[in-house]
Amino acid sequence: MLERIRIVLIGTSHPGNIGAAARAMKTMGLEQLALVAPRGEGINPEAIARASGADDLLERATLHDTLEPALKDCQWVVGASARSRHLPWPLCSPREFSARLPGEMQHQSSTVALVFGREDKGLTNEELQRCHTHVHIPTSADYSSLNLAAAVQVLAYECRQAWLSTQSNTTDTLPGSAYPFGVEWDNPLANHADTERFFEHLERTLIDIGFHDPNNPRQLMARLRRLYMRSRMDVMELNMLRGILTRVDRLQNGHDRPSEPSDPVS
Amino acid sequence: MLERIRIVLIGTSHPGNIGAAARAMKTMGLEQLALVAPRGEGINPEAIARASGADDLLERATLHDTLEPALKDCQWVVGASARSRHLPWPLCSPREFSARLPGEMQHQSSTVALVFGREDKGLTNEELQRCHTHVHIPTSADYSSLNLAAAVQVLAYECRQAWLSTQSNTTDTLPGSAYPFGVEWDNPLANHADTERFFEHLERTLIDIGFHDPNNPRQLMARLRRLYMRSRMDVMELNMLRGILTRVDRLQNGHDRPSEPSDPVS
Repeated sequence: MLERIRIVLIGTSHPGNIGAAARAMKTMGLEQLALVAPRGEGINPEAIARASGADDLLERATLHDTLEPALKDCQWVVGASARSRHLPWPLCSPREFSARLPGEMQHQSSTVALVFGREDKGLTNEELQRCHTHVHIPTSADYSSLNLAAAVQVLAYECRQAWLSTQSNTTDTLPGSAYPFGVEWDNPLANHADTERFFEHLERTLIDIGFHDPNNPRQLMARLRRLYMRSRMDVMELNMLRGILTRVDRLQNGHDRPSEPSDPVS
Repeated sequence: MLERIRIVLIGTSHPGNIGAAARAMKTMGLEQLALVAPRGEGINPEAIARASGADDLLERATLHDTLEPALKDCQWVVGASARSRHLPWPLCSPREFSARLPGEMQHQSSTVALVFGREDKGLTNEELQRCHTHVHIPTSADYSSLNLAAAVQVLAYECRQAWLSTQSNTTDTLPGSAYPFGVEWDNPLANHADTERFFEHLERTLIDIGFHDPNNPRQLMARLRRLYMRSRMDVMELNMLRGILTRVDRLQNGHDRPSEPSDPVS
């Protein structure tokens, strides 16, 4: 799907922005770059430097005098628009764009174009009217000067999110929901029985060392339970905590009954 | 809300990236920039040029020798991490980060830090272990070289999405997003500085009682950090744990020097 999304840059002034846009695309798995009438030198050494290893996208970029040939095989043309125009046009947020994308690209032949305008004045009304939809990246009311490559980065990221959503549906492994911590863990989680034994041990030790008075418990054990329960301890963590408690028990026994050996004589 | 989100850049080499990060922040309404031990010139003319009108953020940026002071008043510290580490840590996607953010920031005093590492090698394990949560921006398996300012742009954009979601749903507080625990809490969450003091105390006590050998640390402290960090301790819980440690310290001192009274004679 991502290989059928085309980034179209119109009238770019700064070659560095073309390179940075290529880098932004490649990190998100996009491949197709089309340049329409760049106003500067186009792909020059600065563009290649800023591409930082994404120069294969620059090499394969297509160059056009006008917008039309860059769009001709596209089924959905989306223009990145900074400001609202006098003539209202179907508009979506980057999130809504992302949500629509998989459906728009379901046919294997579907190609989508994302069109970005000039650094200083964006897309003309004529260009905006070549688009099916406008997408507006919400920016601060006080400062909306989004860099061209940064705008490409945000929408390329939303393209990748859209693609990831199609991948996760197939095998039911939503990133972040597969495991309680959003990542494959190194140890199995502790089971209920072992967790309860830990709490018994913890309470006994806290009584022994004089920190906890079962006749005046306040909420001590309830609060400690809440703390440890919500961390979802794994088995190694639980064993470490029990090891610490055992060490404190030995200390306590030695302190209370210094003449009495707590371990069998070996 | 957005004014209480801090972008922390550690060991940045290229001043241009600092400027571009400031610009990315400002377009999304973020204001707080903290620089930790920049490796290059820091804020120089190139940084100001790339900030392109966001130079007020550069002027107000704080500069720190180490990470600690940049985090000390923060309740939620999130590290941008490119790769998975040998010790798994609670991880979220930028979307999940965005969904959690309004709840995390509901208290007017809550400050959140988003920490970004070096251009060439990201965050160290030690730095990553100062974080409650890691956030990973999904990138192409073939090319994951996300520019620093581009990464700031994506997460700043997700911060703004989070803020926009609070503006539109004035009455709709989604269960599970209202607070980190999905419910109004009884105590404020512990801040970074107090949490670090707890870990120092814990480590000292574990060394004193002979459970932890700093010359052969294995992953003990990292694992304990992970356990407590992901439970998001509140101030009362933290005080209880410190009280337990203090009790164990007294026991240990009494045990080591039995002739020395640990309490005043009554």
